[in-house]
Amino acid sequence: MSQVRAYAAQSPESGVAPFSIERRDPRPDDVVIAIEYCGICHTDIHFVHNDWGMTFYPVVPGHEIVGRVVSVGDKVQGFAPGDRVGVGCLVDSCRQCASCNDGLEQYCEKGWVATYNGEDRHDGSRTYGGYSERIVVSDRFVLRMPEALDPAAAAPLLCAGITTYSPLKQFGVGEGHRVGVVGMGGLGHMGVKFARALGAHVTLFTRSASKVDEARKHGAHEVVVSTDESAMEGVAGRFDFILDTVPVAHDLNPYVNALKRDGTLILVGMLAPTDPPLQTGPLVFARRRLSGSLIGGLPETQEMLDFCAENGISCDVEMLDIKDVNTAYERMQRGDVRYRFVIDMGTLHG
Amino acid sequence: MSQVRAYAAQSPESGVAPFSIERRDPRPDDVVIAIEYCGICHTDIHFVHNDWGMTFYPVVPGHEIVGRVVSVGDKVQGFAPGDRVGVGCLVDSCRQCASCNDGLEQYCEKGWVATYNGEDRHDGSRTYGGYSERIVVSDRFVLRMPEALDPAAAAPLLCAGITTYSPLKQFGVGEGHRVGVVGMGGLGHMGVKFARALGAHVTLFTRSASKVDEARKHGAHEVVVSTDESAMEGVAGRFDFILDTVPVAHDLNPYVNALKRDGTLILVGMLAPTDPPLQTGPLVFARRRLSGSLIGGLPETQEMLDFCAENGISCDVEMLDIKDVNTAYERMQRGDVRYRFVIDMGTLHG
Repeated sequence: MSQVRAYAAQSPESGVAPFSIERRDPRPDDVVIAIEYCGICHTDIHFVHNDWGMTFYPVVPGHEIVGRVVSVGDKVQGFAPGDRVGVGCLVDSCRQCASCNDGLEQYCEKGWVATYNGEDRHDGSRTYGGYSERIVVSDRFVLRMPEALDPAAAAPLLCAGITTYSPLKQFGVGEGHRVGVVGMGGLGHMGVKFARALGAHVTLFTRSASKVDEARKHGAHEVVVSTDESAMEGVAGRFDFILDTVPVAHDLNPYVNALKRDGTLILVGMLAPTDPPLQTGPLVFARRRLSGSLIGGLPETQEMLDFCAENGISCDVEMLDIKDVNTAYERMQRGDVRYRFVIDMGTLHG
Repeated sequence: MSQVRAYAAQSPESGVAPFSIERRDPRPDDVVIAIEYCGICHTDIHFVHNDWGMTFYPVVPGHEIVGRVVSVGDKVQGFAPGDRVGVGCLVDSCRQCASCNDGLEQYCEKGWVATYNGEDRHDGSRTYGGYSERIVVSDRFVLRMPEALDPAAAAPLLCAGITTYSPLKQFGVGEGHRVGVVGMGGLGHMGVKFARALGAHVTLFTRSASKVDEARKHGAHEVVVSTDESAMEGVAGRFDFILDTVPVAHDLNPYVNALKRDGTLILVGMLAPTDPPLQTGPLVFARRRLSGSLIGGLPETQEMLDFCAENGISCDVEMLDIKDVNTAYERMQRGDVRYRFVIDMGTLHG
């Protein structure tokens, strides 16, 4: 065991503040990583505030982690000290079920172990995330960061990136497809970039007419203001796929109607009951599909990082000192970030 | 034009009664069919009663039609007098859109012409269905009935059959799949038969424990009583596909939860808003899909009829004189039919 510096929340009201945590000594398959950058995901805020009633305090958030390997366990072969690596939302799974065998650890039938607020499968200890000096992770759950990627801008790829890349790949998005992306936050702006890079014709749906120029910069061919009912009716029956990144309950019916026959609406943000109710007729009358997708498995996350390196894709980020993380949370809650905050973890020692 | 005998409803309260209608003289692509049998679909009752507010009276219901060719237009090549043929839910479409070009006329972007209560694309006349002596239909919308099929038992294949066959085929159901079928009415009992014939392991979901023996007779390997919450929890995460034939609003969430990762719930009956609300989390956390499917296109309907002939599949039917059709409606509204009424149209002349 070793003590490392971190930032943790102690209660729903405390905010995050300096804290000392223990990191385990490396097991034979472990990689010890000195953290350089950590992105801030909305999930971090939900866990700090215990919005979902499942937080164990103290909680050290952060699951968009980039760093350098410090040391490796005896049986680790793919990583060596000095390598730049990443860790995303999960650090373990059962490794035996059909999903794990398919490299889809995010759908592990026994439940995967979250990078923070999770429970280690071996010793039952609580997992602590990336707002800390270092992390110790089993090699299967460590990603190789291509040197071509800016490591700070690459951090959010490990959650916002893979969450949007995975469904676009899994559902077969490519040339000739018309793809809609709903929302242009951390996830949405990555969805636009990926859909464009995969060869699709991309339309951003946004409530803010002010985002038109930025959407085009990210690669959108068109922008539809989703609060404009006539504009929404104008795109009825038009899309092969719509990737919906909005994280709160909203009316799905206009997006279902915007799909072609056999089109698919893919939810990656909304986890709430449908409100207003979903109309099922438009599914039946055009064989449309409603689906969802959760982050991505380890092989596909590696593929996504390599795809980003090859195609010059990264996240648009604002850098941050760790002492300012509570202020960043406030700005995020106002939607005031373009498009992801990334903490320079060197400032932990400042 | 020629006058033919029929049964029609004159108002929402009238029931169906003898009536005389006009049938057009055959156009060059038309097939004139003497109707032998006509199945009764729940849709017939809805149109007779104007439940959907879109009935034009008089309405002659019936879209599960089997008969013999009487004569053909000059340009018809595939049919000759004496051939046994069928007509299902649609008698025309635009024939030019992407769906029509794909042989998916049921998803015609301009709207297909229904066998009854529709409007002819050429002369604007109202279409009249199968509760009549004969019907005149463009050859593209006429099916060849394999001689191996009992023509009376084959009539409901043209709606109840294709409605369940099409999604099972389109979504790729086959050996190694676990398939659930919800409801065992006219559609559901066909869904069980088709899923079994396609090689799947089949489970019927029903509210009636009394249907267990019959379900096994139709080919179900297992039966789950859907009102038994613990039984429903016991099958969570188990199915590749669930075909839901229930025609009224019901809770979809237990069926979504019964799907495996990447499993699909396919609605073929429910056209109402979800009530209770659909939970979207179970879609996201296991990449499950909710979809729908509408009858089938002409090529696939022909394929289904041939599949039935090859595999000895037909609908379980109760035969009926046309004078008893109003009584049949009453029985259907009580769920008292196993599993489809078919009118012996010879009784029109009795």
